[in-house]
Amino acid sequence: MPSYTAPVKDMQFILHDVLDVAGQDIPGYDELDRDFTGAVIEEAGKLASEVLMPLNSVGDQQGCVLENGVVRTPDGFKEAFEMMKEGGWTALDCDPEYGGQGLPYLMHTAAQEPFVSANMAFNMYQGLTHGAYSAIYFHGSDEQKQTYLPKMTTCEWTGTMNLTEPHCGTDLGLMRTKAVPQDDSSYKISGQKIFISAGDHDMAENVIHLVLAKIPGGPDGIKGVSLFIVPKFIVKEDGSLGERNGVSVGKLEEKMGIHGNATCVMNYDDATGYLVGEMHKGMRAMFTMMNEARLGVGLQGYAQAEVAYQNAVAYANDRLQGRDVTGAKAPEKSADPIIVHPDIRRNLMDQKSFTEGARAFTYWGAYLIDRAHKNSDADADGLISLLTPIIKGFQTDKGFEMAVNAQQVYGGHGYIEEWGMSQFARDARIAMIYEGANGIQALDLVGRKLAQDGGKHVMAFFDMIKTFASETKGQDEAFDRDFLEPLKAASKDLQAAAMYFMQNGMKNPNNALAGSYDFMHMFGHVCLGYMWARMGLAASKALKDGASDTEFYETKLATGRYYMARQLPATKMHLARIETGAEPVMALEAANF
Amino acid sequence: MPSYTAPVKDMQFILHDVLDVAGQDIPGYDELDRDFTGAVIEEAGKLASEVLMPLNSVGDQQGCVLENGVVRTPDGFKEAFEMMKEGGWTALDCDPEYGGQGLPYLMHTAAQEPFVSANMAFNMYQGLTHGAYSAIYFHGSDEQKQTYLPKMTTCEWTGTMNLTEPHCGTDLGLMRTKAVPQDDSSYKISGQKIFISAGDHDMAENVIHLVLAKIPGGPDGIKGVSLFIVPKFIVKEDGSLGERNGVSVGKLEEKMGIHGNATCVMNYDDATGYLVGEMHKGMRAMFTMMNEARLGVGLQGYAQAEVAYQNAVAYANDRLQGRDVTGAKAPEKSADPIIVHPDIRRNLMDQKSFTEGARAFTYWGAYLIDRAHKNSDADADGLISLLTPIIKGFQTDKGFEMAVNAQQVYGGHGYIEEWGMSQFARDARIAMIYEGANGIQALDLVGRKLAQDGGKHVMAFFDMIKTFASETKGQDEAFDRDFLEPLKAASKDLQAAAMYFMQNGMKNPNNALAGSYDFMHMFGHVCLGYMWARMGLAASKALKDGASDTEFYETKLATGRYYMARQLPATKMHLARIETGAEPVMALEAANF
Repeated sequence: MPSYTAPVKDMQFILHDVLDVAGQDIPGYDELDRDFTGAVIEEAGKLASEVLMPLNSVGDQQGCVLENGVVRTPDGFKEAFEMMKEGGWTALDCDPEYGGQGLPYLMHTAAQEPFVSANMAFNMYQGLTHGAYSAIYFHGSDEQKQTYLPKMTTCEWTGTMNLTEPHCGTDLGLMRTKAVPQDDSSYKISGQKIFISAGDHDMAENVIHLVLAKIPGGPDGIKGVSLFIVPKFIVKEDGSLGERNGVSVGKLEEKMGIHGNATCVMNYDDATGYLVGEMHKGMRAMFTMMNEARLGVGLQGYAQAEVAYQNAVAYANDRLQGRDVTGAKAPEKSADPIIVHPDIRRNLMDQKSFTEGARAFTYWGAYLIDRAHKNSDADADGLISLLTPIIKGFQTDKGFEMAVNAQQVYGGHGYIEEWGMSQFARDARIAMIYEGANGIQALDLVGRKLAQDGGKHVMAFFDMIKTFASETKGQDEAFDRDFLEPLKAASKDLQAAAMYFMQNGMKNPNNALAGSYDFMHMFGHVCLGYMWARMGLAASKALKDGASDTEFYETKLATGRYYMARQLPATKMHLARIETGAEPVMALEAANF
Repeated sequence: MPSYTAPVKDMQFILHDVLDVAGQDIPGYDELDRDFTGAVIEEAGKLASEVLMPLNSVGDQQGCVLENGVVRTPDGFKEAFEMMKEGGWTALDCDPEYGGQGLPYLMHTAAQEPFVSANMAFNMYQGLTHGAYSAIYFHGSDEQKQTYLPKMTTCEWTGTMNLTEPHCGTDLGLMRTKAVPQDDSSYKISGQKIFISAGDHDMAENVIHLVLAKIPGGPDGIKGVSLFIVPKFIVKEDGSLGERNGVSVGKLEEKMGIHGNATCVMNYDDATGYLVGEMHKGMRAMFTMMNEARLGVGLQGYAQAEVAYQNAVAYANDRLQGRDVTGAKAPEKSADPIIVHPDIRRNLMDQKSFTEGARAFTYWGAYLIDRAHKNSDADADGLISLLTPIIKGFQTDKGFEMAVNAQQVYGGHGYIEEWGMSQFARDARIAMIYEGANGIQALDLVGRKLAQDGGKHVMAFFDMIKTFASETKGQDEAFDRDFLEPLKAASKDLQAAAMYFMQNGMKNPNNALAGSYDFMHMFGHVCLGYMWARMGLAASKALKDGASDTEFYETKLATGRYYMARQLPATKMHLARIETGAEPVMALEAANF
């Protein structure tokens, strides 16, 4: 059976050596000293390893069951959920006014990682609740906040997000769910929503659905969409639960993975709903949550890769097969552990260098979100807005790829469910799809974010890399050669691609859109390259400062060198593809596929 | 529910326009005229579409069941298997002396493709039988051939291959299964074998297990391994079935995919076995079959991609979402079909250009096997020996990747089992693992095949590309620019990588082995590039010759241009990785992963 240990040291390295969180001028960051963050992550890791990880395969095997309209979660989920609530893990960054702990979003992100690694399906119940909390917190009325949020921070009530309908996912303008105004200022909601994660279950007293719907007579398309609170049980004025609302589970989907999470078809039949924010401005509420939600999904990408990697390393050290070609490493055994073989190394180094780079990227993203929100920093806001589709799209593609690679280390055993590696790959697969499929992330990046505010944010990104390189250059020859030069070359490729889009996208937008996916990936590599350069710098500094754990820092440097040498060359390939433009991509008539 | 139509026209194009099979001086090829091959493929395609495809999801959902020691296959499998037998599909290329039809291996390969696309798990029952047939045919005694082969060509008896044990897969020298000689020249076989595909089932009267085992007192390691026939029921002298042999199913594995095929733990307890070929020369018998078996797995890679692609195209034409950015394509509808969007195109073109290129590569490989066997052509034998790990490793990696991409086209529906796209990805996944995991293919390529016969075959490959380019150059400017130039550039990268290995592998073999996986992939791209150049040439010729179906040939040219422009640039990335050598890959101590 797979196991998991939170990589506390790696996480602390990013928080303190790289991001220097305690030294940042962001409200709440002064609390984040090394001891505090270490204690929080240790505790989260303990819960993850001891409680959530053993339930991961239980959830996969049992799945959720719909019986007489009620969803039953797998054995042990309810007890584990109680432990999450009791430990206060469900609202680390929520407003203390509603029972949260008021910590930075970055701390929430770091604490979530072990839960996601250990049991992604389980953790989604609270993850969705957090999203629903944010929607109400940022857009609801005071009364709505008072009514719902105190119960949602504790996960006594959980939340869901209802966007997709059978005929519309990406294109929400096609939405059919209706919201008819009532005399008491409530609405009657009718329609069907699909793919509703955590749509119903037996671990909470109430489920607060956030539902997008159209009020008749409003504008056509996406501009006529409004957001509603639709509780499973109506909340009475005294806060107690009243009658069952007109919302029911039509079906539980059988999925490739995340079996422990109930993916529901939700039927709304004249269900009572309450408008959140302004009429017809539902998408605005969605968009403000999107950076956080997408960063959370990007985290799922590398968090699944992390747990898969840990188990692949264990197997590679354990499995005896063949001999080191340069001479037996374990002559006393029947064969050497397979970790001696270069191609196993190549595979594990790909995983390790991605996962650590993506963790740094994600934490940096969370830091930017804090800076944007808590310091009202418009530059940070613009930058994270640019980077969000990359965190989501690139990291979930690569996270799945790495989970598949980890499975490959197991050979035939990787394909057998009992060994657990298949589940990591199957679970990781969904992250490429939900919260905006990765093609949509690429479209968002190239079609929207690049040109946002006159292209200001992407130029700021390039300036940042340039400044970083010029400020750090010349202090250490090896660092310059192994980290700065590859980063500069990759960044140059990225700039060339952006330039290609500018010069050719005006003539025909397909010249840009045909390269959007490649651009997302090359941007991802540049970001991880930047992260590795910052990590390499921090590790060099620690070594120069005489840190005692030289092996840890040397390992960081070697892992970073690997990423720069073996992953960054991908940018050249992506650039070459991009520069072929729209023609090869769009040449065929639809009928000739 | 997914559907499948055999791409008969594409297959015929390769057989006739590209390979000109009827014009080849290979015994049996003169029969392969356009009408004959067309009729065979049409019929295979019909059986695949109408019978096997509907059973694909049945097999996935029901799986095989072990009850009281007997394996029950999914509903409908037995009837479908009878149809396969009755249609004579199980022995197209087998020796007529034993009931086969004596057709070229290439014809067998082409006819298998639709079965593999439509139902990979089902088709493995006969696929494994074919492998066992070959082992006995090439290495068994006349008596063994007379006893077993006539029932195996008809699949009245099916076959299995027993290599792996719990503690050894790749490193078969560690094998523990014992074969103790008996007075009557038979052996008593004892031990446990795992991952035995089609190990037992209810569709045949007998199962003929081919089992690797060690005769006590023989050489250590791989040199002491012998091959045995171990029938489930002992065959009496009159050919009728006698008593049950000491072989039983210990367990059925729960797997990520190919649920319709019974993957068994087989226990041998003093089972009666008969030596095949010479004592201690069991691996030789295995190796002679390997080219065929690995080509068959490489076919599985692209055949799963093909069926996934067909369904992705159908969905992309059907699903309405968003508008073409250059102007609505279906203004009368609520939205345009998603096939208008460039990133959907990019995804579909990746799939299409890979699948068609891989089909050509596989058929060419089968042609080389025929030439090697039937014409005793040592050059063809050397070339296919070199290319086999690439057909297997590259095509199954890419085949899985493309099945995942096809699943992505479906958005959320791709993750729901009901839609069938998940199964294609899950089934395709195994092909990267079995018949030698892909890392082992890369090792075989770089560690063995490159240097085979003094590097003669890889040099012959480069010469072949060079000759092809110089012979075709200058006739058509567009062809030179779009096909030949990219091919030459990619081939140059591949040569540079081979050169790097030669120059640096002597100092430290890890300099070569650390780049083996990248080399396998870049070699795959060059081979598909070569295939596309040949297909492009054939399409140009057909157009010049006034072929009536211009759209078909124009589509070939456009698809080929896409592969050359958008896939071949990968060789530069692989070369850059390879040239970083062993250092980044091997830098860490095992304890620091």
